[in-house]
Amino acid sequence: MTYCIAMRLDAGLVFLSDSRTNAGVDQVSTFRKMSVYENPGDRMIVLMSSGNLSISQSVLQVIAEQATTQQRNIWTVASMYEVAQIVGEAVRTVHQRDAKMFEQFCIDFNTSLIVGGQIKGEACRLFQVYSAGNFIESLNPSAYFQIGEAKYGKPIVDRVVNRHTSLDEAAKCALISMDSTLRSNVSVGMPLDLLVYETDRLAVTRFVTIDEKNHYFQMIRESWAQKVKDIFQEIDDPVWDATSDVNAKNEPMRVQPPADLIRYGTGDDVARQTLAQ
Amino acid sequence: MTYCIAMRLDAGLVFLSDSRTNAGVDQVSTFRKMSVYENPGDRMIVLMSSGNLSISQSVLQVIAEQATTQQRNIWTVASMYEVAQIVGEAVRTVHQRDAKMFEQFCIDFNTSLIVGGQIKGEACRLFQVYSAGNFIESLNPSAYFQIGEAKYGKPIVDRVVNRHTSLDEAAKCALISMDSTLRSNVSVGMPLDLLVYETDRLAVTRFVTIDEKNHYFQMIRESWAQKVKDIFQEIDDPVWDATSDVNAKNEPMRVQPPADLIRYGTGDDVARQTLAQ
Repeated sequence: MTYCIAMRLDAGLVFLSDSRTNAGVDQVSTFRKMSVYENPGDRMIVLMSSGNLSISQSVLQVIAEQATTQQRNIWTVASMYEVAQIVGEAVRTVHQRDAKMFEQFCIDFNTSLIVGGQIKGEACRLFQVYSAGNFIESLNPSAYFQIGEAKYGKPIVDRVVNRHTSLDEAAKCALISMDSTLRSNVSVGMPLDLLVYETDRLAVTRFVTIDEKNHYFQMIRESWAQKVKDIFQEIDDPVWDATSDVNAKNEPMRVQPPADLIRYGTGDDVARQTLAQ
Repeated sequence: MTYCIAMRLDAGLVFLSDSRTNAGVDQVSTFRKMSVYENPGDRMIVLMSSGNLSISQSVLQVIAEQATTQQRNIWTVASMYEVAQIVGEAVRTVHQRDAKMFEQFCIDFNTSLIVGGQIKGEACRLFQVYSAGNFIESLNPSAYFQIGEAKYGKPIVDRVVNRHTSLDEAAKCALISMDSTLRSNVSVGMPLDLLVYETDRLAVTRFVTIDEKNHYFQMIRESWAQKVKDIFQEIDDPVWDATSDVNAKNEPMRVQPPADLIRYGTGDDVARQTLAQ
């Protein structure tokens, strides 16, 4: 599996991907999911992929071939919308080639891609491309896309990121989101690729590959873990109160035992407590 | 969808379930997922269900019918292991009845249940039952089971709960886990059923149905949201440093543009920064 997240903010774009790939638990290896198409001053495009690795690799290959054989390609089109179309078409080309055999082997034709960036003359744009080659664009208020193991790391993003978030804060949030995912799912793994793009730079200016030794990520891991435990302790525990009205609303959905089996009481004689308010 | 979580601790068991059910977005309604089988002094069993609602309801019905027609039933067996067997058998009975028609309508036979509790003479035990009627038991160190939309709320549980956690802290954690899930997924909804069982009580002593007006849950929602934002702010933002060595490890996986398209530079002249360490 994989976890990739991309955020579109007023200040620019943030891309983060892991690099674990597995075909069964005995075939785990490292494959970087982020590819960068940069022609400084003209365009800066990032493509991230999840799903079946053979599809992802073939999609990259189809896009690369098109760049040498066709006038209209990822390096020449005038808008990010057309870039998303090119990625979608590449998915469809691979589908045409592989899908029938996949079906025979009961393999899902499963791929999901995020493509975003900026082409001179346009604003930053961000798209998610599906297995059918169709795609959606990130428009407010949905300021981010995730692919792969997206759920573990979603709550923190929902809580702190919006379009006004700074690039550095968004990068920090993406890393915390990744940390939560790494902890909860072994199919997502280091190293991580982090690319932070400032609007209108039209070049890669901030990039890092984060491995286990990266001090900043270590600091995030440790301090986030500790701080979450701290605030968890700070919140009051529930107080149970036998004296409050135990009304029908606070009754469990009970299945009554057969009458002949009730040996010790009916339950009415057991002091039942509900949350004190 | 649904979200239910059950934790097995040294001090007892915690069960929490939501109550949203939907068949498509235009058929959303409330259905409580938690059923309690209590014969005070003898046994206290909680069953929670997720997946296809018609299956869950039929499973409850089969278990109830067996209690009136057969000697061996949920009220008479001597161990929680046998209770899990009875639940699994009920799933198989429903499968036998419905699965063929489900297949014709391309409906997955999808159900997942958690059953836990205590029978006199045994310790507390907790099981997860699958669609095939097979089941697993929660043994250390995996001290909890989740069914339904489990991923959003998993990181917080992984971070703070272990077998030594007190019942009240575990209940608090379950509610925070539920809050994260409610925020990130509209198919999970209030009210919530929370049952906290102390080892060897053999009766329901702490139960509450939590709706939007519940003060404790409101407090958790608000203070957790605020505290998470606070600790997020407390963590240092990344510092990008142009002077550090930009070595090969910190290079993105680039696709080079065709040479004849490079109009503005090769990228080497753009100051690139990586994370300061």
